[in-house]
Amino acid sequence: MWRGRYSWSVTFPVVGMVGGGQLARMTHEAGIPLGIKFKLLSDTPQDSAAQVVGEVVVGDYRDLDTLRDFARGCDVITFDHEHVPTEHLRALEADGIPVRPGPDALVHAQDKGVMRAKLDAIGVPCPRHRIVADVADVAAFAAEGLAEGEEGDGFPVILKTVRGGYDGKGVWFVRSPEEAAEPFRAGVPVLAEEKVDFARELAANVVRSPHGQAVAYPVVESQQVGGVCDTVIAPAPGIAEELALEAQELALRIAKELGVVGHLAVELFETRDGRILVNELAMRPHNSGHWTQDGAVTSQFANHVRAVLDLPLGDPRPRARWTVMANVLGGDFPDMYSAYLHCMARDPQLKIHMYGKDVKPGRKVGHVNTYGDDLDDVLERARHAAGYLRGTITE
Amino acid sequence: MWRGRYSWSVTFPVVGMVGGGQLARMTHEAGIPLGIKFKLLSDTPQDSAAQVVGEVVVGDYRDLDTLRDFARGCDVITFDHEHVPTEHLRALEADGIPVRPGPDALVHAQDKGVMRAKLDAIGVPCPRHRIVADVADVAAFAAEGLAEGEEGDGFPVILKTVRGGYDGKGVWFVRSPEEAAEPFRAGVPVLAEEKVDFARELAANVVRSPHGQAVAYPVVESQQVGGVCDTVIAPAPGIAEELALEAQELALRIAKELGVVGHLAVELFETRDGRILVNELAMRPHNSGHWTQDGAVTSQFANHVRAVLDLPLGDPRPRARWTVMANVLGGDFPDMYSAYLHCMARDPQLKIHMYGKDVKPGRKVGHVNTYGDDLDDVLERARHAAGYLRGTITE
Repeated sequence: MWRGRYSWSVTFPVVGMVGGGQLARMTHEAGIPLGIKFKLLSDTPQDSAAQVVGEVVVGDYRDLDTLRDFARGCDVITFDHEHVPTEHLRALEADGIPVRPGPDALVHAQDKGVMRAKLDAIGVPCPRHRIVADVADVAAFAAEGLAEGEEGDGFPVILKTVRGGYDGKGVWFVRSPEEAAEPFRAGVPVLAEEKVDFARELAANVVRSPHGQAVAYPVVESQQVGGVCDTVIAPAPGIAEELALEAQELALRIAKELGVVGHLAVELFETRDGRILVNELAMRPHNSGHWTQDGAVTSQFANHVRAVLDLPLGDPRPRARWTVMANVLGGDFPDMYSAYLHCMARDPQLKIHMYGKDVKPGRKVGHVNTYGDDLDDVLERARHAAGYLRGTITE
Repeated sequence: MWRGRYSWSVTFPVVGMVGGGQLARMTHEAGIPLGIKFKLLSDTPQDSAAQVVGEVVVGDYRDLDTLRDFARGCDVITFDHEHVPTEHLRALEADGIPVRPGPDALVHAQDKGVMRAKLDAIGVPCPRHRIVADVADVAAFAAEGLAEGEEGDGFPVILKTVRGGYDGKGVWFVRSPEEAAEPFRAGVPVLAEEKVDFARELAANVVRSPHGQAVAYPVVESQQVGGVCDTVIAPAPGIAEELALEAQELALRIAKELGVVGHLAVELFETRDGRILVNELAMRPHNSGHWTQDGAVTSQFANHVRAVLDLPLGDPRPRARWTVMANVLGGDFPDMYSAYLHCMARDPQLKIHMYGKDVKPGRKVGHVNTYGDDLDDVLERARHAAGYLRGTITE
């Protein structure tokens, strides 16, 4: 039977995502209404995203043959994390598979030394920094930070391994030369950075597509606890309009100069004297953009998918006066499901996002979003729910 | 190694959904952030939902053994459609599997004769109706509708097979006794209904949970073209507040009296003299509720999941002054992907929902949602996008 006239398949592209974490889970969720096909390369069948995606390949992203097999039939490859080796990404590109963001962009999110050198070269304000070789070099770096005539040794400073750190791992707050030995033990290059006396942390999230279209989300305030993101407020309360514009323009310029395709998060320090300095970059959907799921016209996840497919981008504008995201960390008691019931009953407007992950103390296992006109109320609702789910609030 | 103290699984329940259509696809999408496990029984691996769900069983829902195998390990069974035989649902319940909505409720959405009898018994206003045996009986039913002293034969009337109809199928608009023969050919019971002289069609969507919590969405206007839903406007423009309240209360009462668990759509006629009459019932997420995905705090899909799991229900209130849903039907040309690109570029605020279905002329393959303060603008954007995707608008 000739079916051509009466029924046909619409060829929608296939997005292959490497990494089975919550970012892939939420990207898949955002891709469903777009009608795209989503394929996942996951370490295990139990990973957060692997539980909910239709087409899952279980395998090791560090193995080139596995990546090549996975990439076959994908129209584009994108990432849940920054850990795929650069040479593997180049091999996929040589095979003719678009990799977005590409290896030349992604290296700036993989290697903090490369990132700092590039940002210096394009004139982006950063904390004072230098690759350091040993403890004596750290002491010299610290002393260089002393103002003319200032007493002391210039400590504290921040030390970071140039690769592999996240959520406070691979980062040391060093108060003396004695404390500076630890980061060198792994034998990887170490970056020293001044301890910035910041007023608060901000994040500027932008999305850029291969043909150069870009959108900027409102600049948010990101509150960290113990090096881990705790609360994000959109937009950043009381931010000067010029500073917000400057941060958005900076992020758009970084995206363009580095050739980023997809979502780019630029984590920023706002100094006490009103300047912004770039702290970190992430080239994927980012914790500072989770509020967009319920607070923006188009979420960071939907726009990341649209960008890597070179589809026109969606509107990044906020839908509410205030949106607050609070991370749900694992606590010390296991009965999160009954806490989840309680939170839903207490606040019918609460937007819960659970990742399907096993609970460990301190591990990110979900987040909540709240929105509304009254910031105090919106903050209280988000923090109460996150605290209750963690078990630190019990009433 | 004893892992109990440092890592544990949170036991979230498993929802098993029977039927792989777009309603299951969108219910899965809504279930991802809730952290629930979703399992699908689908006719084929290509069905709309089967493309995006992690755990898919391919099998025939009319086969009890298949259903029983599928239900093992599910905490609750719910439905994408109303076609599962009642005796199978009773067998699952006897096995100890909660079925929501249960067979005693669901029969009212499966059998229009049973539905009308029940609505009569609880005093819900319906069009004049009667089960008819043959053409002579139809003629008698038509004549009974004549007012005192009115001339004519009382036609037109509506004939419906009591089971199996949807989207205009199994429904006949009958202008004469000669036209009344056709519906009897299938040998199934036929229901005759008066042709209501309605001003417009409305829908009242409510969600009810096993412990009796219920929420009501704003009453919407539903515009049909050729017996198929074309556009839904939320809330129904210009509706009298008392009439909207009456419709919501009616739907809540039907849900309670029929023991519905989950989403209930009550399709209504608004008569020219300002009354409402019940047209149809659906006990699952419904086309008249698709606007809630982008227009309400909690979507019908999320609330259906919450209801069948007896979780506290989410806020059904609207997020925008106006939200419009327009169905995307298959048209006569295959290049829907380039039309989709065009629509995204034209309207960055457009919310597209594609179902991953093969295109056939007239088949529902997706929908779009738009929202905003200006109804004319919101309507134009939705209709333009739906028309462009179908191919009936080319500029």
